[in-house]
Amino acid sequence: MNKIIKAKDYSIEFGPLLDSNFQNLLTQNYLNSKIIILVDENTHEYCLEYLITNYPELADAEVMLLPEGEENKVMEVCFQVWEALSEYKVSRKDLIINLGGGVVTDMGGFIASIYKRGIDFINIPTSLLAMVDASIGGKTGIDLGSYKNQLGVFSNPKAIFIDESFLQTLPKEEIQNGFAEMLKHGLIKDKNHWEKLVSLSKDKINLDLIYDSVSLKNEIVLADPNEKNERKKLNFGHTFGHAIEGFFLETEQQLKHGHAVALGILCETYLSYLKGKIDIAIYNYIHEIIESEFNLISIQEGDYDAIISLMQQDKKNQENKILCVLLTEIGKCEFDQEINREEIIEVLSEVLS
Amino acid sequence: MNKIIKAKDYSIEFGPLLDSNFQNLLTQNYLNSKIIILVDENTHEYCLEYLITNYPELADAEVMLLPEGEENKVMEVCFQVWEALSEYKVSRKDLIINLGGGVVTDMGGFIASIYKRGIDFINIPTSLLAMVDASIGGKTGIDLGSYKNQLGVFSNPKAIFIDESFLQTLPKEEIQNGFAEMLKHGLIKDKNHWEKLVSLSKDKINLDLIYDSVSLKNEIVLADPNEKNERKKLNFGHTFGHAIEGFFLETEQQLKHGHAVALGILCETYLSYLKGKIDIAIYNYIHEIIESEFNLISIQEGDYDAIISLMQQDKKNQENKILCVLLTEIGKCEFDQEINREEIIEVLSEVLS
Repeated sequence: MNKIIKAKDYSIEFGPLLDSNFQNLLTQNYLNSKIIILVDENTHEYCLEYLITNYPELADAEVMLLPEGEENKVMEVCFQVWEALSEYKVSRKDLIINLGGGVVTDMGGFIASIYKRGIDFINIPTSLLAMVDASIGGKTGIDLGSYKNQLGVFSNPKAIFIDESFLQTLPKEEIQNGFAEMLKHGLIKDKNHWEKLVSLSKDKINLDLIYDSVSLKNEIVLADPNEKNERKKLNFGHTFGHAIEGFFLETEQQLKHGHAVALGILCETYLSYLKGKIDIAIYNYIHEIIESEFNLISIQEGDYDAIISLMQQDKKNQENKILCVLLTEIGKCEFDQEINREEIIEVLSEVLS
Repeated sequence: MNKIIKAKDYSIEFGPLLDSNFQNLLTQNYLNSKIIILVDENTHEYCLEYLITNYPELADAEVMLLPEGEENKVMEVCFQVWEALSEYKVSRKDLIINLGGGVVTDMGGFIASIYKRGIDFINIPTSLLAMVDASIGGKTGIDLGSYKNQLGVFSNPKAIFIDESFLQTLPKEEIQNGFAEMLKHGLIKDKNHWEKLVSLSKDKINLDLIYDSVSLKNEIVLADPNEKNERKKLNFGHTFGHAIEGFFLETEQQLKHGHAVALGILCETYLSYLKGKIDIAIYNYIHEIIESEFNLISIQEGDYDAIISLMQQDKKNQENKILCVLLTEIGKCEFDQEINREEIIEVLSEVLS
């Protein structure tokens, strides 16, 4: 029996897709529906056949290919899909299956939620990042220029199926990409989870660790689905992380989301020290772990203004103040912490010089 | 004291804006917020100054001008506004005021609901159509090609203020535009309302009639906000109406929404007769009223396929069936009524030849 986590009004199921309720769901709810499968180039090549050959219900499904990568998580691509859905006369009773990483689940969820004011979608995340983070919690959306996830809606899938066998299709940097969010879940909420992750390192990720990470995120989301309070904790590492990611999105040297978040975690941990929330020893310890798992990069002083400008656009901000999550110990944090320009510069020059 | 209707989690207030809670709302909730006012060319010219001069809270508001007309209720315009909002560093705590007709309230609500996964908005409808229909009920959205409101979300404003003095700025065809929806409210739910409207005709619309129309719509929406059942009744006249409107959107001869809905009401009333739901006498009576208020237009036989194709894309459809609302008497109707190609052709050739 696969393990199941109950989210707000849907389930997250862990284990082989073939042992899951996926087929039941298709036959019970979508027998007379059109089914659209959204894939990217990778999942089109490595994951789609598995679905099509195992589920006769999907024999007539329409497959739509999204271009690969964060730089394509944009309105133009959504628009093309909406036109295709209209052409294909997809109705409110039909279903979209998002088969892919975070870009596919974020953008596919958004596409489904806006089309005819919302049609059903199911997430089958195939990357570690999508399994532990992107596909969970109802945040759908796309980027607007360098502003990450600037456009979107809160909208839940009908179900999520997490089958770790898809991870075998991934290159190493994709595992790293999800590992940063798992570390974050430990740092903000569960010291035990953090220690398990650190002791195993990212090459040994297993379904139990994924389950634990999703449980932590789900608990936070259930307590505060629309991010009024508690859910803000999940943004730890993301005030700096999103700005760094957005900055590199405009350059030749692209940075994976998880890599940027790992750097963001480091910056915001140092900030926590700077603002007297933790000892330098905790920062040094976390620095050692992050450094062993991720390449640290350096940001030139001349680029600080661009980074700060991106941080000012962060969705968490209020009244022009830049707000941030700070650690108070490993496994605990505080949100809505105001930070200023001087602190940001001090952090960047200390951590990413 | 202005009359107030309680909607799901917001209020609809009727009467002079200066006597309303508008100012309270601004000072209590948005004192430190950026305020954006979305207008179109007409409300920019005729309505904006009234707001700016009467409310010091709006002195620093940013005014954004949307291009006029249904053909501009499109993603491209939204995209420009989102870029401007980002540039202006609008945050989740800020406010958008939609000052305009149905295009402004539909599109402005959509823009606000998608930006950073949703910021607050207030509707101040200035056209009769927006007062009695578009701004009420939480449907926001834009068109996709000829498909009306194909993209959107259900999302409620923080408040709606209906001040009939704005109607004085409108040309006659704009009053007609809203009158069709008021007639519809009577036909589907309240014979008394229909009779009052018919006895007064559209030149004598007053705030009490607007209030009654909004009450009828609000009751239906409260019973079924996401249009699973009862709310479908509000689509009476819109299966044919939207298709006719969409068809003319692609031609030189543009048709106002309300005009298209009036023609749709006529078509669907005839269909109700065809399918044995009402006597021909009721159709003849309604025909007489509609003909006295709206110009009937004719559609060429060669264009029937285009109309039917648009009807197949209607959001109300299920499993490739075209569904429709049919009258059973004046003040009563049935939804989810299946209709076929032959019936559509018979109706078009009888009613709009």
